[in-house]
Amino acid sequence: MALKRLDSIRPVRWDDGALVMVDQRLLPRQYHEHSYRDAGAVAQAITDMVVRGAPAIGIAAAFGVVLAARARYQQVGTGWRAAIEQDLTTLAASRPTAVNLFWALARMRRAVELITAGDPYPPLLAEAQRIHDEDIAANYTMGELGAALIDSPCAVMTHCNAGALATGGYGTALGVIRSGFQAGRIRQVYADETRPWLQGARLTAWELHRDGIPVALVCEGAGAHLMKQGDVKWLIVGSDRIAANGDVANKIGTYHAAIAARHHGVKVMVVAPTSTIDMTVAHGDAIPIERRGEDEVLSLAGQRVAADGVGAWNPVFDVTPAALVDAIVTEKGVVLRPDAGKMASLMGGR
Amino acid sequence: MALKRLDSIRPVRWDDGALVMVDQRLLPRQYHEHSYRDAGAVAQAITDMVVRGAPAIGIAAAFGVVLAARARYQQVGTGWRAAIEQDLTTLAASRPTAVNLFWALARMRRAVELITAGDPYPPLLAEAQRIHDEDIAANYTMGELGAALIDSPCAVMTHCNAGALATGGYGTALGVIRSGFQAGRIRQVYADETRPWLQGARLTAWELHRDGIPVALVCEGAGAHLMKQGDVKWLIVGSDRIAANGDVANKIGTYHAAIAARHHGVKVMVVAPTSTIDMTVAHGDAIPIERRGEDEVLSLAGQRVAADGVGAWNPVFDVTPAALVDAIVTEKGVVLRPDAGKMASLMGGR
Repeated sequence: MALKRLDSIRPVRWDDGALVMVDQRLLPRQYHEHSYRDAGAVAQAITDMVVRGAPAIGIAAAFGVVLAARARYQQVGTGWRAAIEQDLTTLAASRPTAVNLFWALARMRRAVELITAGDPYPPLLAEAQRIHDEDIAANYTMGELGAALIDSPCAVMTHCNAGALATGGYGTALGVIRSGFQAGRIRQVYADETRPWLQGARLTAWELHRDGIPVALVCEGAGAHLMKQGDVKWLIVGSDRIAANGDVANKIGTYHAAIAARHHGVKVMVVAPTSTIDMTVAHGDAIPIERRGEDEVLSLAGQRVAADGVGAWNPVFDVTPAALVDAIVTEKGVVLRPDAGKMASLMGGR
Repeated sequence: MALKRLDSIRPVRWDDGALVMVDQRLLPRQYHEHSYRDAGAVAQAITDMVVRGAPAIGIAAAFGVVLAARARYQQVGTGWRAAIEQDLTTLAASRPTAVNLFWALARMRRAVELITAGDPYPPLLAEAQRIHDEDIAANYTMGELGAALIDSPCAVMTHCNAGALATGGYGTALGVIRSGFQAGRIRQVYADETRPWLQGARLTAWELHRDGIPVALVCEGAGAHLMKQGDVKWLIVGSDRIAANGDVANKIGTYHAAIAARHHGVKVMVVAPTSTIDMTVAHGDAIPIERRGEDEVLSLAGQRVAADGVGAWNPVFDVTPAALVDAIVTEKGVVLRPDAGKMASLMGGR
């Protein structure tokens, strides 16, 4: 019953001719939605992390293309097709690491190419809606597949927010956790607070607590000590991009947690739709890793914490090598102990 | 030249008949000193983390005994010896993990036993001053010994604050870093911000920046990704208690960082005076680990971050097993790849 409520969290949705997004920077203290009718503003919102999470970014960008095409068609008629190129470029430049962004833009571009004449708005909106709906359906599928990997009632750990808020709904890692909790396989969730943006403290804890799933926050540094206690059997995370060999880019701290997991015999599950898999990137070291401003580390809640003159190193993602991953769960199936051959099989490449 | 300034940071000092302590909760934004003339208030200040860092806690407690003896002697004359028992109990209960606290109290108790008659204040003050002076001297010695272990100019990582502020002055881990920087063996320091108390962001960065030592803050989760870059050759930390087999209790996150260090071939150096070594505790699992309030994780800068109803798991320390430690540096010498036999030899037990 509790899980039904979950379905109502949609970080990104189309409403009355506009893209509506929950401002995730304000959660959990404020639940505020912004309405977007301009593709440039959508790109800026992605950069500013109004919306975050690889699948959610992709969906937002898809709706951004709808907004762009509508505006260009109103402005220049049949010239819209040429005119939206610059909108596609702007949207693609909004963030560098999450490949779902580029995947969604490529899919919208194919939809553009299928339009022979007339107003592009209805067919492009339909395609963006399909992307959104398919993402939610994929999350339910992954939830079942991932939960089935968990043998006995246990505690699990997660990092960052790979939840409803990071996707079209239900979540990837948190989808597995929701399904696993409902199936009685997960008793307790430990959520890394996830510095510097605190997605775990602000978003994951909020999402899970809403659903009545027991969640306790831990600082990242406590991860190894927690795993040593023996209750945690799985580290379950999402991904921003998976390379062709199964290397996984995800929020900074994932790699560190995965090393601690291996050290303690805790298994590592990565949950991501196939739109997160980038077969054009051979291995994780080739994935571009975003670095954000030092101030995200040097200040807290708008107040400078560190002494003046002190710097910070603030990479946003890291790469967990496939060798540390026990399972990649996608909507097309589960890859155990991933490698290039298994990933190619999953993606139909051989 | 720059290092001379360091010597002026004394988190704990005796001045004009009172114990004066820098309020480390306010740094770096405010440099404020409190003056204590009551042993109970000293114990409360230790509990409240006005002063923190195992050696500094021990020194503060030693001066607390001086204050207690002076007050009891004024109150009850020769009955002071019985009366201070309750002050010793209060001081011992102020924090559970740092063994330097108990070591310093035991040493002050021996000084008490040597007093045959008269005002206990002068001899006890002299003993507390000796504890303080010896701690600083030990830090200079450890600085030299530890720096000598670093082969070539490199970057190092540290966790929490094992600096001048955590000791009588100069620091343990940061003493090695100061000596290593001066000797040209350390080029760059990466300091974990050290959630939830942010001792790295607030204290370590402040201390090192004051001395002109290049320091960049990193979130704990970024540690493994940083080590993978290859510049960091040593993880250098302090300790709150070292067991007889060389297991090391230190600020939560140390064990997490040590696992990542081993994974990347980064060496782990623990710097602590022999007063931190507890030969009565056979191994690290027997060291009592303090847990503090959930609110330290759930709130930031006085503002609740997590949703209402969410809990947190907040252990303050963890234990790094001796097997992950490459060197324990003490003022009596260096123990490489520590084990019970080597620790006993160091401590003169065999």
